[in-house]
Amino acid sequence: MKLQMALDRMTIDQALQLAKLASDSIDIIEVGTSLIKEYGLASVRELKKAFPELEVLADLKTIDEGAYEFKVAYEAGADIATVMGASSIDTLAACYRVAKEFNKTMLIDLMEVTEEKTRRLMPFNEAVFCIHSPTDQEEKHLIDHLLHFKQKFPVAKRLAVAGGINLDDVKELKKFDPEIVIVGSAITKQKHPGDAAKQFHLKMNGE
Amino acid sequence: MKLQMALDRMTIDQALQLAKLASDSIDIIEVGTSLIKEYGLASVRELKKAFPELEVLADLKTIDEGAYEFKVAYEAGADIATVMGASSIDTLAACYRVAKEFNKTMLIDLMEVTEEKTRRLMPFNEAVFCIHSPTDQEEKHLIDHLLHFKQKFPVAKRLAVAGGINLDDVKELKKFDPEIVIVGSAITKQKHPGDAAKQFHLKMNGE
Repeated sequence: MKLQMALDRMTIDQALQLAKLASDSIDIIEVGTSLIKEYGLASVRELKKAFPELEVLADLKTIDEGAYEFKVAYEAGADIATVMGASSIDTLAACYRVAKEFNKTMLIDLMEVTEEKTRRLMPFNEAVFCIHSPTDQEEKHLIDHLLHFKQKFPVAKRLAVAGGINLDDVKELKKFDPEIVIVGSAITKQKHPGDAAKQFHLKMNGE
Repeated sequence: MKLQMALDRMTIDQALQLAKLASDSIDIIEVGTSLIKEYGLASVRELKKAFPELEVLADLKTIDEGAYEFKVAYEAGADIATVMGASSIDTLAACYRVAKEFNKTMLIDLMEVTEEKTRRLMPFNEAVFCIHSPTDQEEKHLIDHLLHFKQKFPVAKRLAVAGGINLDDVKELKKFDPEIVIVGSAITKQKHPGDAAKQFHLKMNGE
């Protein structure tokens, strides 16, 4: 299991500082959608430049212009780029093709995606499928979603989980062995983000 | 009918130059998703600063974090911000609330939205509904989509149309009297973008 720290609603400098504090404990730095939309791909470029040894995920949330968006994100240094499962199959296929060309990773965000549509995404079998409780939704049932997804789509091997994950959730999440656990405010909004990241790391990798 | 010029896949300087060439003929400058993702909201800020007399649309394509994204876009000078109809109803409601607070406009992009979901969007009755043929889809049937939408959802009064619109499409589009006609490369990729914008303006407003 990899630990991904999501950086959102902050300046690039704050993102760099947080990444420095947590860098020993995390595997992936997520440059959040809010950073990309406020500062552009400079946010991705600067994080990758400062932490070349870590993976950087650009949370583009692409929904059209798939080939273009993925290309510029990978060129900016992203190792992983995200596309919405709610996109057209043409857009998803374009992203998948570019990910393969760059030998990089595509993550499909399953937020607001129907089961029928999810079924149509299974041929993208090298992508990471992200079970995502949206920030804007009040009720969260991440574990239920994950359980349901695993039962319905056992063919999907690479999973990520995101959405309000706390330290207490780790024990339950471990049973499902997702490839990536995405944590935001439970690290970044803590008094000691470096310590919080370390706790996640230990809990994810300990017994 | 308002003419909206979509600016995509270019630098902010190129966007400013194109807007200058077309400013007499257009009503709305669209700061495209690609500009926002590459350069951040500085793109919106600079276009609005240079053309305060024109409306500026920030094509955010918001799909989560609705309140935050709309707030920062309006604060950057956008008059119109866009949200995906494929978002959760909570996200759409958050965007709608912020649009009202700022007394600005919300445009709902209907790309990849089912008819059943579209029905659930009708309470957002002050929003502009955008019938959108995605760039990534090869077959385009914009007029068919528009006709179908008008028949199914006569309650939606404010309409926009986007997706590969050429000068030859204007005559047919006029029959539907959409509030906004969105044109990209048929203006921006022409040898004389100012003249192309003028032709659209004349054809939209003439007999």
